[in-house]
Amino acid sequence: MVNLVQLGLGPLGQKVVRFALQRSGLHYVGAVDPAPDKVGRDLGELCGLKELGVTISKDLATALKGKKADVAIITTVSSVAQQLVQVEEAAKAKLDIVSTCEELSYCQGTFPETAAKIDAICEAHGVSCVGTGVNPGFLMDYLPCVLTSVCQNVEQITVRRFQDAAQRRIPFQQKIGAGLTLEQFRHKVSDGTLRHVGLAESVRMIAACVGWKVDNFTESLDPILATERITTGHRMIEPGMARGVEQIGHGWVDGREVITLHFRAAVGEPESADTVEIRGEPSFKSTIPGGINGDIATCAIIVNAVRAIRNAAPGLKSMLDMPVPGYFQHL
Amino acid sequence: MVNLVQLGLGPLGQKVVRFALQRSGLHYVGAVDPAPDKVGRDLGELCGLKELGVTISKDLATALKGKKADVAIITTVSSVAQQLVQVEEAAKAKLDIVSTCEELSYCQGTFPETAAKIDAICEAHGVSCVGTGVNPGFLMDYLPCVLTSVCQNVEQITVRRFQDAAQRRIPFQQKIGAGLTLEQFRHKVSDGTLRHVGLAESVRMIAACVGWKVDNFTESLDPILATERITTGHRMIEPGMARGVEQIGHGWVDGREVITLHFRAAVGEPESADTVEIRGEPSFKSTIPGGINGDIATCAIIVNAVRAIRNAAPGLKSMLDMPVPGYFQHL
Repeated sequence: MVNLVQLGLGPLGQKVVRFALQRSGLHYVGAVDPAPDKVGRDLGELCGLKELGVTISKDLATALKGKKADVAIITTVSSVAQQLVQVEEAAKAKLDIVSTCEELSYCQGTFPETAAKIDAICEAHGVSCVGTGVNPGFLMDYLPCVLTSVCQNVEQITVRRFQDAAQRRIPFQQKIGAGLTLEQFRHKVSDGTLRHVGLAESVRMIAACVGWKVDNFTESLDPILATERITTGHRMIEPGMARGVEQIGHGWVDGREVITLHFRAAVGEPESADTVEIRGEPSFKSTIPGGINGDIATCAIIVNAVRAIRNAAPGLKSMLDMPVPGYFQHL
Repeated sequence: MVNLVQLGLGPLGQKVVRFALQRSGLHYVGAVDPAPDKVGRDLGELCGLKELGVTISKDLATALKGKKADVAIITTVSSVAQQLVQVEEAAKAKLDIVSTCEELSYCQGTFPETAAKIDAICEAHGVSCVGTGVNPGFLMDYLPCVLTSVCQNVEQITVRRFQDAAQRRIPFQQKIGAGLTLEQFRHKVSDGTLRHVGLAESVRMIAACVGWKVDNFTESLDPILATERITTGHRMIEPGMARGVEQIGHGWVDGREVITLHFRAAVGEPESADTVEIRGEPSFKSTIPGGINGDIATCAIIVNAVRAIRNAAPGLKSMLDMPVPGYFQHL
């Protein structure tokens, strides 16, 4: 039996709660979300389940009063700088930590000072901490690293995540800018709300695994424009409007591009697929036709990582140095 | 710098030596093979390389005299009962162990008493030990377990390794019985020389990951017969002769088949591919068209596991509880 505390109860956090409670051996003893419309409500009721007898608290200290917890699941922010305080609080409460924070997934490579701080805090309190999710955390970093296990040499790694967003929920279509004018799209890019966070972390994780000293990382973000009227999504998209986004991360060693992470999500995309292509000995391609549903996968891997983090040594972990966070029915 | 000892210098062991020496930071200090035509020869010379100044010894004690070694790479037998003595000797010499022994890859599930013995020996001497390879060790167990990480539920796992053996080397075609009469094929099956070892281990590893209590394991082994003359392999195969082998492992829970491992290797097979199919939430299929070359992959993952086993805690490990054994250029 593992006792959980949930930090962050947006749509993703609520889904994680529902997923965790479908496993046997996982149990919530506390929940935190400072939003005034959530504090004081029952966790189960908020998540569309039966009452759990767990009241949502405004902070972790209140949530843990008189409770014995083992693991904090954090689904709050993308920035590791903002995550730091929450990690510190949880570690001091002797909780192992599993987090959706994108930058946490491999801050060892992108924010080494913050990573060292988190590692020290975790070691001092004998707890372990990992950031994961479908991407970053799985499709564009962990999975390619796993696939290199059968390689005697690796020269280049390309990962493609291409998604037709037509079947996805409205917030996802909005998130990728589908239906925006070029001006609206650029505005959302400049205010930072239309951006997949994690390509830098994924590039650094692959590089650390293979042993490449990436001396240059570049990233592009562009709208994918409709060339004809599209009616397959939740709203009509006229020619010239954005139907989605294309974001590419490039990792370079000595002027040679060794890692390419190609993310495309758009309404009317001809084919959805997740592909890892390795050039080396042997060269091969691994494809998941249709691709992996991001919402399900992120919430599932967060719950699956609970077992793995319980079995990990203290400190800040990445997916590279954890036991396999495979699915489990019961703990 | 990691100092290696090689135990077993058949064709696979020799290839491992060549692969290991292509990485920087791996160094051989000793080698063991009791075959009279190998003892006393130089390891590099035997493996088709330049002289290494490492003499092949008849046993580990002789090989280690005056040497400081870190890891034993064992490429000798398929049976964990036969492997036990070698593991014990290496552990007593304070060597971490990476082995191709198929049954060792998940003896935790198939030979729990032997596994407990190995675990205790390794713990007592502060070393860690793992059995791996392309299969068992990767394609039919580790990789499917990794893929379940994005699942909220898993109902059924099917793995298919289909190989057209026409392009493979002669010993491989012989190993799978291509060109044998039905009688010759059955003879080789009954004397145990025509059998892929490891399906039981792979089923048990997946079951342990997901949490299935497999109450029945069955395995079939049949020739794939030529229905017309085949000329694509190294020898002509007449109708009615075997062109390869089909071996299927089935894992059952409460009368329901939850794991199916389907291995087919034959000359004239229409398509080579390695496929993992997961039925659950989400359901998806992951395919490597063309499949992974077994010889390269086994030798590569053995070398890659050296880094992972150095970072693992003492005891008998499986691929489930190791850090990712991804490719590395240098240690």
